[in-house]
Parts: sequence; structure tokens; C-alpha cells
Amino acid sequence: MKAAIVMGSKSDYPVVQKAEALLQEFGVDCSVRIISAHRTPRAAEEFSRTAEEKGIEVIIAAAGKAAHLAGVLAATTPLPIIGIPMKSSTMDGLDSLLSVVQMPKGVPVATVAIDGAENAALLAVQMLSIKYPELRQKMKAYKIKMEEEIMALDAEMNA
Amino acid sequence: MKAAIVMGSKSDYPVVQKAEALLQEFGVDCSVRIISAHRTPRAAEEFSRTAEEKGIEVIIAAAGKAAHLAGVLAATTPLPIIGIPMKSSTMDGLDSLLSVVQMPKGVPVATVAIDGAENAALLAVQMLSIKYPELRQKMKAYKIKMEEEIMALDAEMNA
Amino acid sequence: MKAAIVMGSKSDYPVVQKAEALLQEFGVDCSVRIISAHRTPRAAEEFSRTAEEKGIEVIIAAAGKAAHLAGVLAATTPLPIIGIPMKSSTMDGLDSLLSVVQMPKGVPVATVAIDGAENAALLAVQMLSIKYPELRQKMKAYKIKMEEEIMALDAEMNA
Amino acid sequence: MKAAIVMGSKSDYPVVQKAEALLQEFGVDCSVRIISAHRTPRAAEEFSRTAEEKGIEVIIAAAGKAAHLAGVLAATTPLPIIGIPMKSSTMDGLDSLLSVVQMPKGVPVATVAIDGAENAALLAVQMLSIKYPELRQKMKAYKIKMEEEIMALDAEMNA
Amino acid sequence: MKAAIVMGSKSDYPVVQKAEALLQEFGVDCSVRIISAHRTPRAAEEFSRTAEEKGIEVIIAAAGKAAHLAGVLAATTPLPIIGIPMKSSTMDGLDSLLSVVQMPKGVPVATVAIDGAENAALLAVQMLSIKYPELRQKMKAYKIKMEEEIMALDAEMNA
Amino acid sequence: MKAAIVMGSKSDYPVVQKAEALLQEFGVDCSVRIISAHRTPRAAEEFSRTAEEKGIEVIIAAAGKAAHLAGVLAATTPLPIIGIPMKSSTMDGLDSLLSVVQMPKGVPVATVAIDGAENAALLAVQMLSIKYPELRQKMKAYKIKMEEEIMALDAEMNA
Amino acid sequence: MKAAIVMGSKSDYPVVQKAEALLQEFGVDCSVRIISAHRTPRAAEEFSRTAEEKGIEVIIAAAGKAAHLAGVLAATTPLPIIGIPMKSSTMDGLDSLLSVVQMPKGVPVATVAIDGAENAALLAVQMLSIKYPELRQKMKAYKIKMEEEIMALDAEMNA
Amino acid sequence: MKAAIVMGSKSDYPVVQKAEALLQEFGVDCSVRIISAHRTPRAAEEFSRTAEEKGIEVIIAAAGKAAHLAGVLAATTPLPIIGIPMKSSTMDGLDSLLSVVQMPKGVPVATVAIDGAENAALLAVQMLSIKYPELRQKMKAYKIKMEEEIMALDAEMNA
Repeated sequence: MKAAIVMGSKSDYPVVQKAEALLQEFGVDCSVRIISAHRTPRAAEEFSRTAEEKGIEVIIAAAGKAAHLAGVLAATTPLPIIGIPMKSSTMDGLDSLLSVVQMPKGVPVATVAIDGAENAALLAVQMLSIKYPELRQKMKAYKIKMEEEIMALDAEMNA
Repeated sequence: MKAAIVMGSKSDYPVVQKAEALLQEFGVDCSVRIISAHRTPRAAEEFSRTAEEKGIEVIIAAAGKAAHLAGVLAATTPLPIIGIPMKSSTMDGLDSLLSVVQMPKGVPVATVAIDGAENAALLAVQMLSIKYPELRQKMKAYKIKMEEEIMALDAEMNA
Repeated sequence: MKAAIVMGSKSDYPVVQKAEALLQEFGVDCSVRIISAHRTPRAAEEFSRTAEEKGIEVIIAAAGKAAHLAGVLAATTPLPIIGIPMKSSTMDGLDSLLSVVQMPKGVPVATVAIDGAENAALLAVQMLSIKYPELRQKMKAYKIKMEEEIMALDAEMNA
Repeated sequence: MKAAIVMGSKSDYPVVQKAEALLQEFGVDCSVRIISAHRTPRAAEEFSRTAEEKGIEVIIAAAGKAAHLAGVLAATTPLPIIGIPMKSSTMDGLDSLLSVVQMPKGVPVATVAIDGAENAALLAVQMLSIKYPELRQKMKAYKIKMEEEIMALDAEMNA
Repeated sequence: MKAAIVMGSKSDYPVVQKAEALLQEFGVDCSVRIISAHRTPRAAEEFSRTAEEKGIEVIIAAAGKAAHLAGVLAATTPLPIIGIPMKSSTMDGLDSLLSVVQMPKGVPVATVAIDGAENAALLAVQMLSIKYPELRQKMKAYKIKMEEEIMALDAEMNA
Repeated sequence: MKAAIVMGSKSDYPVVQKAEALLQEFGVDCSVRIISAHRTPRAAEEFSRTAEEKGIEVIIAAAGKAAHLAGVLAATTPLPIIGIPMKSSTMDGLDSLLSVVQMPKGVPVATVAIDGAENAALLAVQMLSIKYPELRQKMKAYKIKMEEEIMALDAEMNA
Repeated sequence: MKAAIVMGSKSDYPVVQKAEALLQEFGVDCSVRIISAHRTPRAAEEFSRTAEEKGIEVIIAAAGKAAHLAGVLAATTPLPIIGIPMKSSTMDGLDSLLSVVQMPKGVPVATVAIDGAENAALLAVQMLSIKYPELRQKMKAYKIKMEEEIMALDAEMNA
Repeated sequence: MKAAIVMGSKSDYPVVQKAEALLQEFGVDCSVRIISAHRTPRAAEEFSRTAEEKGIEVIIAAAGKAAHLAGVLAATTPLPIIGIPMKSSTMDGLDSLLSVVQMPKGVPVATVAIDGAENAALLAVQMLSIKYPELRQKMKAYKIKMEEEIMALDAEMNA
């Protein structure tokens, strides 16, 4: 099973990295690319047009401001695209969020929270687990572990 | 292949219906339920806890205002959840959008545009097509048809 | 008289603590729990379903982003729920506020200001004082003291 | 048991009426007043200063735009105040919501959704039910009825 | 000629001070008070009810969040009220702005920019200069000086 | 005593008219002009530069969208300027409000609510009444009448 | 001189038409295309890649919601792109505006007001008039005519 | 070829400087002025009225808050005006953006992103390149260089 992460700028990497790490934790093969919808449009087109044939099964795209990357990739691939709206120096992420989520009829982007890199990875895992039962099991284990961690914090506070 | 659509209120059906119709067009088996995170919490819990064992592979949840439905379902199932933020009588859908998309770390909801029922269906198809090659083919055909329709409108305008 | 405070994440405690301290100042018995609507849904359900029988009379719930905690607790208890929308790293608290306050018909959450932990405690006291006359007296004293403090600052400035 | 509803303008009555009807349904004695924080400040002060001695146990205040009514009443009574932010002709209710909910430390207003008159009534009932066990029972019955109604709609749709 | 500045909290003084300094520069007699619409409602009422008879001709009111102070003062005095919406820790001043400016028909507040203390003072001067010709002359001189300062900066940059 | 109303477009007149009518009711001499900051900049400059010498004592400026009119007039006259942000077909008046109220240091605009024409007129009256005692008396009478009207509605409702 | 107008959907034409009509009034040769960044990405790429060689000197792009069209065209042509953010059924045009205007460093879009088709045409004329003196003359005449029309309305109102 | 940059305040220079540097890099002659629409209205009028005859072909105007500068210049010159909305201490740049972009019919401002100084310069270059072929060549080279830089970063990450 294979995912790809694409980010619009190298400066997005500190956030995007969390998605990469989490995918690796789940054993999902994962490449990371710097591709800009506006600055490297040919690379963007080439990437999304060939993604399926390269065996990529889901794409995570992270971009900020007028964040067109996820939508632009979605235009030329039938693969599911997960969009991470990145917070930038102005507008507190609202511009990125609306640019990613408000896609017109026909071309969806599966949008997660602003700067929500971990959730993008988890969503990719959930999508892949439709096909791969071992990922489904790992996802269940992840949820149980998360539940236990919070219950432990709660128990500790009330000890 | 099997999807489920859940809506928080019967009044959401005129919009949600478009997702149902589109899933049927793609040949995806699809049930539609009225379940409220706040008004029928037990039904919500029962639905999401048992969804996987009933063969459901992806869930679409539509709700408005403080739209907790998608998130609440996501809490108790490992399946991918697609959230449709429904526009209500106030706040132009912004409340619904933020309530659906801004999920905390660990529990993603794949959010589409406000009232974006068709895109929710298409996203479900894209997720399912990771496993089902015939859906991938249909998705490609859908994209080509969409492209041709717009090109025809363009040609007509410039005839 | 007995209140409970629930927070969605341990990181909410620095703010939530102010509610706890104020309730103690008023002599209201008060437990503090870490329970997440999304990460520990069973604990959330168990907590709110049994709150009444444990003698809890009012619940304060603090959460951020897509802040479903207060609403989710409200779904399964007849007790009044006070929601504190927590400011997080994006959207300046607007997402939390709308997720807490815009509850659908049938399931109210008594929402206070973003990060308004003290006011959540005072509101709990006001609710409890419907039943407990001693709390009403303390509330009146609190208001007088607050008035006197500000009048003293004013007098000092104009001395 | 006794509640009071105050609205800032007669034009708020079509919405406010739903709170009145619901309180009556629960058997809560309820008066409705037109009092403006800005246009009848003396009536506002007189109302809130004497509310407690008149046996009023909870106050619902509805106002729009720069909606100061709930806050102004809260300033001079120890009773819990429930605020309904009313949508007006501009700003889609956001101005009202922020004016009602963002109360400074020391003077809370229990805010419900924009135009959320029914929820204001239900919240009043929940507050009163801290003292009155019969209201608690009615609230439980209300929740069950609400649950059943939605489950019936769901059953009907899937019949 | 006589103005009064009222602020809702002592923490507003660093901003409010700029209004005081500017009024003094214009030779306008000016008192500064700490009065809260919510925490010292009786002082607020007493202040605005007696402002005219004390010779005050214009009032500047600064408050943040659900900023009711200016509106509350406007309710009980025929004097013009200038409102300064103060930025607080959340919502970037939008809550304060809407709470101050969106006053209902009948009770205006002359609102200046968020944290706009200097402009509140200048507006007070402009109002007073309707009556006092010497203030009109000073206002003209102020505008000329401001113009010259910027022209000097421009000349310096292009020297 | 003399006021002037300026509007950026003839289509603003249905709202602006309410200011004109109210000023006439108070006996304030009042002209109404159509002047656009952007479309008739010379007329704007000529109007505000000569307003004082024509005996105008206060100016009301109404404009929508990027509503620069009030600010542009304020640049070239020492007279107080009252700005009415007009709601237009998009953005629900928020663009107009921010364009009118967020004036930089040195050039204030006394901003009233979106579409708040009556309040603009009342604010003009309050400013003028600094100089004209008869207007102060009328303003007091207006406030009393307003109070009585609402008290009558309240009495009627509770009759 | 030659401009091109591109719109993302045929439903944008009633607004876009105003730009076409105005360009024709100025004698600018102008084609109108329906091209979607997301639904006909190849047509979009082909259009912008070949626009310059076809003699097009400026491009106007109109799109709504997650309005990527203008940005996507800007990626593959050195020509200036004017973006019209179209108001759609939700978010009052804010999503479109932010998606068009908040372009990342390196790829500007000259953004006009929401639904501002006429201004897009006028901006195109102003750009072209850098090269074509006859357009500069027409632009001056247009401004004078606009000024005269408003002055006539003003005169009529004060006749 | 000649451009002019105007900024409303000297404090805008750290951002505006990037536009100046980029224009110089492209070999565009460029002056920088400090002119305020509100504080030096005569200089603003004089500047825009004479800009064309001084050989200026495009104007970049940067201002914050109620950012009227670009619009005011646009009123009295037929030249294209590029507006940079500057982020200030409140409202995260939204006030500036709306004040710059929402221009009424007849007087466009070509608006770039909040604090988008580089894009303002590039847009000016694109406009000028309608007339000057050498700038078109430089613009193409700039786009290629930008593309190559990002591709190099991408290659490096995947080396």
C-alpha cells in the first residue's frame, strides 16, 4: 500500500512531517514531494496524471493561503485527495481552509483541520484500510491506544 | 461495496438525496438513515459501532449548525467518515463547516464543501475505488464525461 | 451540592483550573475529569449517563476546535451543561465557540465566553443557587466584592 | 417555579414565543416582557433588581445586534441569565452572538444558539430541575420523546 | 469645555491614556474613570445620569469583548458617546467592535477603530469644536502639522 | 444649526432618507448630496473643503463596499464626520463597516451601525446639542418618548 | 488589442457578461470561454499556455467557491490575470475572494471586488492602455462621463 | 518604463521594500513615496493627477486598516492601480483587504494578497510587459527560475 504526500512549499515540512511519520508508523509506504500548483504547474500535472500508474493509492496535499494544490491535483487523477489547509502569516488559516474545502461539484477534496497533518495521515490509513485488512486492525489498535492514554491521564489526575 | 449516509435531521434530505442518487449511479449499495448525535445518541453509537460488521465500508454524515454527527460517528468506528456541513438559517454554513472540519488530532473527518452532497458521494467512490477497480473505471469515465460536458458548453458558446 | 468539570484534553487544564478554584471558593464540591468526546467516547457516554445518579447537579465541559464535548454530554444527561469554548492554535476560538453554542433544537448547551472558565464556574453557582440559598448569598457577596474592588481602583485613580 | 422572558423589541416575539410555549408545556410559570437595555434602561434595572424578590428563578433575555440586554440584566441580579442572540438584518447574527456570549469575567450569560428560543426554554427547565424533581422527570420524558420521534422518522424512511 | 473618559477595566489604561494625553494637548478638561457596565452597574448609571449636570459635554467609553459600556452609558444620558472597542485576548477585537457599533435604533454610539484611543480624543475635539471656535483652530493646526510631518518623512525618503 | 448628508450612490437614498427625516424632525437644517469619493473626487474635495465656510457643522456620509467616502471627507475638513456603513449585495455589510470604522490615527470617523441612518441623525443631533441647548431638550424628549413607547408596548402585552 | 474572458461555469455568465459588454464598448476584442480549472484542466492548461501566441494580452478569469481558475491560469502564462471572485450560494463570496486574492509569492492575480465584472473589464482596459493610447483616452472619457452622470443625479436631487 | 510605489505610512516600508527591490531587479524605474489618503490628501490628489504626465505607467499603493489609499488614487488617474492590503495590529488584514478590493463599479483596484508586496511588483511587471517585450521575456525567465528552484528543492528532498 502506497501514499504520497505533496506540499506546496518546503516551509510546510515541519507540519507535514507529522503525517509522514504517522504513515510510516502504520507501515504505509510514503513519498514526500515539493510541488506547487502555481510555481511548478507542469510537475503538478505530471505528478497527478501518473500517480495511479505508479501505484499510489491516496494523495495528501498540503498548501496555504490561496491553497489550490489539492484541488489542482484532484483535477487530473481519479485517486482520493486529502487536503491539509496550512495556516500562514495572515487570516489565521481561514483562507487556506476555504480554498481547500469549498471545491465545486465534481471534484472533491477530503479536507482535514487547519494544520491537521496527523489527521490527514489517519484519514489516508482509513481509506487504505477499505482494501487492506491489516491497516484496519492497526487503526483499531490506534484508537484503543489513544483511548487508553487519555484514560490514564484522567486516572492520574484523579489518583 | 457498501456505503451509508446518515443525516442529523429529515430536513437535510433534499440536499443529502443528491449523494444517494450519485452513489446509486455508481452502483454503490447505499442506505440512508436519520440519526442525530444529540437527539438519538444511542442510535448514533449503535450505528457506528456496528457499521463495520454490517459490511459498510464508508460513511457519509450530514449535519448543520454545531454539526457533531460526523465527529461522533468517527469516535466509535475505524471506518472513514465523510462530513457534509449543512447550511442552516444562520451563519451561512460557517458554523457547520468549522464544527465538522476542525476535528482534534486522532479522529479525522473527511470534510467536503458546505452542502456538498455530490462531492461527498464522489469522495466515497474514490475511497472505495482503492479496493474496487470497477469503481475506479467508473470514476475515470465520470471525469471524462464531466470534462466533455463543459467543453460542449464552451464549444456551443463559441459556435 | 456538586458540580463536575470535564475537559477534552489535559492541555486545557491551565484555563479550566480557574473554574475549579472558583467553585471551591464557593464551597461547591467539584471533580475534574479528562474525557474526550472523540477519543474516549465510551468514557464520555458513561460519565454523562451516570452523572445524575452520582449526585452531580451541573456539568462544565471545556473543549477546543470542533468542540463537541459539551454537546455530546448534553445528549445523554438531563443535567444542565455549561460549555467553555477553548481557544486553540488556529481560528482564534471562533471554531470552538460556534461548535459549542450553535446546538440544534432540543439539546442546549449554556455557553460562556471563549476561555471563560471563571464565568463557567459562576454560572454553575447561579444555577445551583436556584436550589441552595446559601450559594445565592455567596453570589450576592461576590458581586458586591467585585463592585467594591473596581470602585476602589477607580477611587485610587482619581485620588 | 417561575421564569421570566425579556425581549429587547416587540419584533423579537415570533421567535421568543417558542420559548414561552415550551416553558408552558413544562408547566413553568412564565411572564414575557418587552424591555430594552438601551431604550428603557430604568425598566431594565428595575426588572432585574427586583426579579429575585418577585420569585423569578431564571431569566431568559433575547436581543439582537449590539445585544446588551442579557448582560445588563446580569449586572444587577444574582439569578442565572440565559441569552438568546437574535439574528437581525445584517451580520447574520454574529454581532448578536458575540455581544451576548463574550461577557467579561465576573458576569456570565448562559448563551444559546442564534435564534435558539426553544433551547433557551429547555436550558431554563434544566436549571430549574436542579431544584424541582418533577421538572427533571419531564426533561427526561422530553428527551425520550424527541429520541422516539427521530427514530420514527428514521424507521419510516427505511420502511 | 469638558470631556470624560470611562474604561471598563484598569487594564485598558495603556491604550486609553493616549486619548487622555491628546485631550490635554488640546486643552480639553478631562477626567478618567474606571466604571464597568457589568461589574459596577450602579456607578455606571450614576455617572451617565449626572454627567450633563456636572458640565461634561462628551463621553469616551472604552471596553472590550461584549463591550456594553458605551451603549449602557448612552442609554441614560443625552450626551454624545464615543466608543472605543478594545482588542482582548480572543477574536482580535471583532467582538468588541460589533458590540459597540451595532447599536439599535434610537441610541447611537460614535464608534472609532479598534484600540483607536487617539481618534476617540480627536473626535471629541471635533464635536466640542462645534461650540468652541478655539478648538476648531487647534484642530486645523493639528491637521496641518500631521500633513507636514508625513510630507517631511516623504521628502526625507526622497532626498 | 446645519448638517449635511452625503451619499455615495443614489441607491443609498431609501436608507439615508431616514436620517434626513429625523434631522428635519429635530429642526436641523439639512442638505442631501450625492457625491462619490471615487467617481466624483473633485466634488468630494470641493464639498468637504468648503463645508465649514458654508455653515455646515456636522457631516453624515453613507457609503457601501470599500466605503471610503466618510474617510475621504474627513481628510479635508475639521468638522466631525459621521459614517454610515451601507450593506451591499455581498459580505453583509462587513466590508463597509471595516472600511468606515478602521480609520488610521489622526482622522476619525464617528461610525454607527450598518444601515444605521436614524442613529447617524441622532448622533448628529447629540453633537450639535453641545452648542444648541434647544436640541439637547429635544433629545431628552426623544429619549423619553422612545422609553414610553416601549413601555406602552410592554404594558399592552401584559394587559 | 485583445482580451480573453474565462469563466468556470456557464452559470457565471449573467455576471461575466457585463465585463464582455464593457470591453466591447471600449473596442477591445474579446473572446469568452467556459473553462474549469477542476473539470477541464487540460483545456485550462492549453488555453493559458497558448494565450500569448494567440495575441491575447490580458485574461479575466471568473470563478466561485474554491476559485482556483485565475491562479491556475496564472501558473502557465506570463500574461496579467484579472480574477473575479464570484458569489455562490454559501459564504457570501468570502471563500471565492480569499481563494482568488491570497495567491502565494511569485504568481499574482489582480483581484477585483466580489462579482465585480465591470471593474475587471475596466482594469483590463487600464492595463491595455499602457500600450494603446487610444484606450487611455477612452478611459479618461469614461471617467469624465461617470463623474458627470453622478453630478447630474446630485444636481437633480438638489434642483 | 516607470512605476511608482506609494505607501500610507513609513511603517509600511519593510514590506513595501520587497516590491521596490523586485521592480529594480526587473529593470523597472521606480520611485517610492509616503502619501496618506487621509493625512496628506492634497499630496495624494497632486500625485495621482500628475502621475501620467510624469511618465508613470503603473502605481502600487500599500495601506492598512481602512485602506483607502489605492482607491483614492484610482479616483483621479486613468493609470492602473495595484493595491497591497497591509496587515495591521488588529483584524489580521481583513479590514485592509476588504477596504482595498471591494471597490465600487467604475473604479477598479488590482488587489494582491495581504502584505503581498512581491506579487504587486510582479503584477506591475506583467502589466508593463503588455507594452515592453523585454519585460515579457524577463517575466518568462522569472517563472522558469522559480520553477527550477522548487524542482531543485524537491529533487534535494528526494535525493
